[in-house]
Amino acid sequence: MTAGTKGHPVATLLVSCRDRRGIVAALAQLLYGHGVNIVDAQQHTDASVGQFFQRIEFDMSEMHTDRVALERAIEEVAARFGMSYRVKYGGKSNVAIFVSRHGHCLHDLLTRYRLGEIGCSVRVVISNHPDLEEVARHFGVEFQYVPAEGEDGRGAESRALQLLEAHEVDLVVFARYMQIVSAEFVKRYEQRIINIHHSFLPAFVGQRPYHQAHERGVKLIGATAHYATADLDEGPIIEQDVARISHRDAVEDLVRKGRDLEKIVLGRAVRLHLEDRVIVYGNKTVVFE
Amino acid sequence: MTAGTKGHPVATLLVSCRDRRGIVAALAQLLYGHGVNIVDAQQHTDASVGQFFQRIEFDMSEMHTDRVALERAIEEVAARFGMSYRVKYGGKSNVAIFVSRHGHCLHDLLTRYRLGEIGCSVRVVISNHPDLEEVARHFGVEFQYVPAEGEDGRGAESRALQLLEAHEVDLVVFARYMQIVSAEFVKRYEQRIINIHHSFLPAFVGQRPYHQAHERGVKLIGATAHYATADLDEGPIIEQDVARISHRDAVEDLVRKGRDLEKIVLGRAVRLHLEDRVIVYGNKTVVFE
Amino acid sequence: MTAGTKGHPVATLLVSCRDRRGIVAALAQLLYGHGVNIVDAQQHTDASVGQFFQRIEFDMSEMHTDRVALERAIEEVAARFGMSYRVKYGGKSNVAIFVSRHGHCLHDLLTRYRLGEIGCSVRVVISNHPDLEEVARHFGVEFQYVPAEGEDGRGAESRALQLLEAHEVDLVVFARYMQIVSAEFVKRYEQRIINIHHSFLPAFVGQRPYHQAHERGVKLIGATAHYATADLDEGPIIEQDVARISHRDAVEDLVRKGRDLEKIVLGRAVRLHLEDRVIVYGNKTVVFE
Amino acid sequence: MTAGTKGHPVATLLVSCRDRRGIVAALAQLLYGHGVNIVDAQQHTDASVGQFFQRIEFDMSEMHTDRVALERAIEEVAARFGMSYRVKYGGKSNVAIFVSRHGHCLHDLLTRYRLGEIGCSVRVVISNHPDLEEVARHFGVEFQYVPAEGEDGRGAESRALQLLEAHEVDLVVFARYMQIVSAEFVKRYEQRIINIHHSFLPAFVGQRPYHQAHERGVKLIGATAHYATADLDEGPIIEQDVARISHRDAVEDLVRKGRDLEKIVLGRAVRLHLEDRVIVYGNKTVVFE
Repeated sequence: MTAGTKGHPVATLLVSCRDRRGIVAALAQLLYGHGVNIVDAQQHTDASVGQFFQRIEFDMSEMHTDRVALERAIEEVAARFGMSYRVKYGGKSNVAIFVSRHGHCLHDLLTRYRLGEIGCSVRVVISNHPDLEEVARHFGVEFQYVPAEGEDGRGAESRALQLLEAHEVDLVVFARYMQIVSAEFVKRYEQRIINIHHSFLPAFVGQRPYHQAHERGVKLIGATAHYATADLDEGPIIEQDVARISHRDAVEDLVRKGRDLEKIVLGRAVRLHLEDRVIVYGNKTVVFE
Repeated sequence: MTAGTKGHPVATLLVSCRDRRGIVAALAQLLYGHGVNIVDAQQHTDASVGQFFQRIEFDMSEMHTDRVALERAIEEVAARFGMSYRVKYGGKSNVAIFVSRHGHCLHDLLTRYRLGEIGCSVRVVISNHPDLEEVARHFGVEFQYVPAEGEDGRGAESRALQLLEAHEVDLVVFARYMQIVSAEFVKRYEQRIINIHHSFLPAFVGQRPYHQAHERGVKLIGATAHYATADLDEGPIIEQDVARISHRDAVEDLVRKGRDLEKIVLGRAVRLHLEDRVIVYGNKTVVFE
Repeated sequence: MTAGTKGHPVATLLVSCRDRRGIVAALAQLLYGHGVNIVDAQQHTDASVGQFFQRIEFDMSEMHTDRVALERAIEEVAARFGMSYRVKYGGKSNVAIFVSRHGHCLHDLLTRYRLGEIGCSVRVVISNHPDLEEVARHFGVEFQYVPAEGEDGRGAESRALQLLEAHEVDLVVFARYMQIVSAEFVKRYEQRIINIHHSFLPAFVGQRPYHQAHERGVKLIGATAHYATADLDEGPIIEQDVARISHRDAVEDLVRKGRDLEKIVLGRAVRLHLEDRVIVYGNKTVVFE
Repeated sequence: MTAGTKGHPVATLLVSCRDRRGIVAALAQLLYGHGVNIVDAQQHTDASVGQFFQRIEFDMSEMHTDRVALERAIEEVAARFGMSYRVKYGGKSNVAIFVSRHGHCLHDLLTRYRLGEIGCSVRVVISNHPDLEEVARHFGVEFQYVPAEGEDGRGAESRALQLLEAHEVDLVVFARYMQIVSAEFVKRYEQRIINIHHSFLPAFVGQRPYHQAHERGVKLIGATAHYATADLDEGPIIEQDVARISHRDAVEDLVRKGRDLEKIVLGRAVRLHLEDRVIVYGNKTVVFE
């Protein structure tokens, strides 16, 4: 179902608006009129808030107009229905990965990257520790050591922002990045920072969730990938999963089992985002798998 | 997402045809033209065989034509694209449940029925053993004891067919029914008989799958709900699930753990079928959840 | 592995004490000395608190002393090591089930009871609503309607306590019982009340967890069976499980999917307790599966 | 629960014999008599075949005899009960990993190795293709390219055997190794070769299991780690797991989702073996987790 499997360039249109009759017909008609073929379409209506969402994947190889004409047409329909929308023509997103000392998520993401699982261009790995430089190098990715400076770490943050701009980064991934970032930073990359939290949110927010889980005596541990927001661990959830544990598992075992969860949950969330399958509304997500 | 949650009568249109440009637009336009609102639409293209599938759930409360006009229009579009299609206006399907001696699936289905989880009318429970009569009665459902007769059981089968006709049955559920039925019987209710097999098919076809699983030393057991076909256990799979086991589990434990799987997998498959979410093609299913 | 599968009467010994060298040898030697055969033994040491736990299942069919002698010997060893212990000779526990209006857990437990999955004697179903009387009757179990009376419901509680005493109840199961009970009640049946909470605790404590889950936009819902304590939803967890949901699921769908979780998680917890597989320490459990 | 978490050197004793009264007591007494502390003990009796199994993890830091005396004592008890047994004093096993072209399992295993998840010494990576040399190098592990030679590949096999001997290899891991090995090779490393098969065995034995799964239309895919035997895909199963798929998944998607399964299932099986948690009997395993 991914873009790469068809052989043709595939584009996506993500749409969200108040639910009304005729939206589906208007968009289908529009695309048909331009000679564009709908490869996949998924829609959702949240009846409780009256909101409509749609993701359309389309093939432009036999389009008989051009992008400018198509976009003008989409804009017109969008205006008529009061839609927010986003079109993407299948170019690769630029990604930056932030890490601290735990390398398992970085390793896993870069392996997926090399295997072509996540279609993007990983431009830079940024870390507040020098430890994982060799991992980035092994995969041929630039590594930047940006140590926290001063009391509030703002120096480091502005250095990081410069790097993101220099690399024209579209998506930031916090792959177990243990440094707190400012509300401004988050705002600047709103809905474009994915964080992995090592618990089944909203259980065990904050520090040392595996210790909290062990203390509470739960029988499952979890991991949560979510968009970063100013309130830590409160952002829209993209993906979650859990693994079974027992009284036999010490905190060290939870950490070990949790690593597998974190890798897989983060990998899925990054892929879903890069394939334009996620729409945020309120503090929730629609995920068109 | 189910019909009952909106307050309005909801109908479904299931469509399947060779993939071509313009199908989605044609159907969306058609429904819009009759004043029908698309509540939910899901589509799928199997690129490997070039086949298109769509399920549209629509609200007719503000339709400004009538059913006859709507159906004529659908027929016309269907002819143009060479579609197979099925419309359902939300009336309740009539269901017959076949059981032998194991009552857990029957109990579970009837509990779901009473709770309104599966929107249908369970007309009759048919069994080759008298044991479960009391269960049917408790739920206020007619029970018919149809013992196997003669060498080939054909007498019993023809009696069962009479009952199905008398009750105008749309869906037959084999809820752990241990009697083999003829190819004619299966043909008569093609894609309308759901069977639960107590293994993760295609592993452990045939008799005593839990014994086979124990013998082989697998670490997970499964259950599979599928449409019955002439070849036993070979029909299109609707739903499957598994549970973890270990060396500690004797065959009796597999049977016990398996009961929970069977109940849940069969319950899901019946609900999916009754909500017109399943399209069969080849020996596979598209399931629009 | 359960008592009933061996043909012989099987007894269990549950032991807990400070970890010390020689405990395992002392108990094994003791049982051997009485001609008792160890059928299954599991142990656990929580190294972080230095506590030792063991569950021994033993066959007394060739014991060459008697119970009095055996118990005296156990008492002696227990005194030497400062053990807490509990012996059970396989007699059936008396169970009371408390329900309100949701019948799915009651139905499921009684079906398991009838199938012999949970070896006990269900003596009475107690409810603050009359609705589920027929379900209890269908399974041949006494039903007592005990409506909440007065401002604090104490009248009802004292009536319930009388019933529990009259029936010599060993285990109380809150199978979706929506009435708050007093700290005294909980104290009286400490570690002998199992409650099912319809969330993955500690997420979504309190009222309407499915609404909370929907609001937060989680991608999995859960259920938790735990021993009741004075602090609501804070007791030692026996068993948990989760199910996947998506943005497509309205609150009603969470409720429906959650029912399957609740039934299975509660069923497992009740069986584990009745087979003497659970030891509570601190606010956690050791579960010897 | 692993050796490394206690700070003391920990040894393991694995035992298997006909079930008899007094085994547990005899072993516990023996170890106590030498001043050895039992850290963890798990046992299992397969009642259907009358076989007893036990794993004892013990701490020798306060042993007041020596290894020679301890082993003589164990031998004596083993002779008395007709036991097979294996003692391991916690030294690191030597491991060889065989791969072909798919690098995900190799990458994952070596990451776990570096993180200390699997306590062993990975001595060599052997491949019939040169592609993954760089991966081995990145983790500082010797890489040997051993191309298939001649019609039956025996030349390559004897070269591989030389390497295994030179490195004193205790465990061979086939991490997606696509070359068939001879019955002699398998015999030489009986119960010491772990293979990962990319299906839920016994479903989809043989070639291209993801294609088979797609063809059959299953709703879950699996992976199986097992000991290699002369009959391909028929050896004793150590670990299995599954992942949910749908009609939306093309074969490429199954391959992608399957990679995560393969990595995790193989990683678990290797760890379980290296921690001496697996006993093979007949064609099955007892896994003491």
